[in-house]
Amino acid sequence: MTITSQLLQDAVDALYRLPGIGRKTALRLALHLLRQPAEATEQLTGALARLRKEARFCSRCHNLADTDLCGICQNRARDASLICVVETIRDVMAIEFTQQYTGTYHVLGGVISPLDGIGPDDLNVESLLVRCASGAIREVIMALNPTLEGDTTVFYLSRRLEGLPVKITTIARGIAIGSELEYTDDVTLARSIAGRLPYQPQQEP
Amino acid sequence: MTITSQLLQDAVDALYRLPGIGRKTALRLALHLLRQPAEATEQLTGALARLRKEARFCSRCHNLADTDLCGICQNRARDASLICVVETIRDVMAIEFTQQYTGTYHVLGGVISPLDGIGPDDLNVESLLVRCASGAIREVIMALNPTLEGDTTVFYLSRRLEGLPVKITTIARGIAIGSELEYTDDVTLARSIAGRLPYQPQQEP
Repeated sequence: MTITSQLLQDAVDALYRLPGIGRKTALRLALHLLRQPAEATEQLTGALARLRKEARFCSRCHNLADTDLCGICQNRARDASLICVVETIRDVMAIEFTQQYTGTYHVLGGVISPLDGIGPDDLNVESLLVRCASGAIREVIMALNPTLEGDTTVFYLSRRLEGLPVKITTIARGIAIGSELEYTDDVTLARSIAGRLPYQPQQEP
Repeated sequence: MTITSQLLQDAVDALYRLPGIGRKTALRLALHLLRQPAEATEQLTGALARLRKEARFCSRCHNLADTDLCGICQNRARDASLICVVETIRDVMAIEFTQQYTGTYHVLGGVISPLDGIGPDDLNVESLLVRCASGAIREVIMALNPTLEGDTTVFYLSRRLEGLPVKITTIARGIAIGSELEYTDDVTLARSIAGRLPYQPQQEP
């Protein structure tokens, strides 16, 4: 395809810069917008511009927020004495999707990774310590990814939280529901045996 | 994934309306823009808004244009006595990409399709007749898709162009280069035998 319009070329170039959008898809999207009423483009550009301009991070938990506090921190029905520490706002969304967790969150914004030049000072660690030192926090659940960096970060945080009146827990590691033992990696398998639980026939799935 | 920010939800909804963009991709794109500098979003929304507002269709050939005439109609190096009739601006781009055609175009904006309620009056037919009646046109090449509707439209146009001093040709139909006889549909195969050509050993590929 050869594009003869500079306006179209600019739009395709801008769309092509998005992750996972190739040149052909970018062209298809741009031509789609041209065929639609002008309102469709206005709606899209307006929503994206508003998101980038107005969205901020919650002053308490660093989750994505429309106002000073995010919807979860504002919600009085949530258990504010429970903090689930996660890496990114995507993790918040994934846990919220389960509809099982009723506490609050703390988004670190990453994990300690010396190879990537990310140290504790690059993460939202101090604000977590301040929250835990307030005395209003009962339990901190570490829900970081089960990687070397994740485990290192959990270890670092547990050391920093020592002496504060909070219980530290981590999410359960083990065989995922629906997966097969045969194809599970050996570290997960070994950990799930070492961390075996009493059998509970009445346990909900 | 559960989205707790209305701003993010609006952006995801707007992206989700684009063809081929699912909910997960929409979320990934929105979060990507949030991580990038604000300029990235401004560049994207600006390019899309400008395209939709400023792009128009060439007053001569109905190709996409940045000004009154498209770049091809403005180009004095192109043979203005040759018109290639195509269905959409995508077809213009595809033919331009071959870098073999040096004439001009005429974008019909579709083909005659009674089932879809598209008649000759919905297409850019009159402007083609005006161009051909000017006496400056030597040849009209019909480059419509080889479908029932495409063939019907070519037949209709050839009847309307009768009596005008223009030669009417169609692009060659036959077995595509690189394809296999065995898997070619019977209509194409029959046509390519009926429309056989003298063998030319020196012919360029």
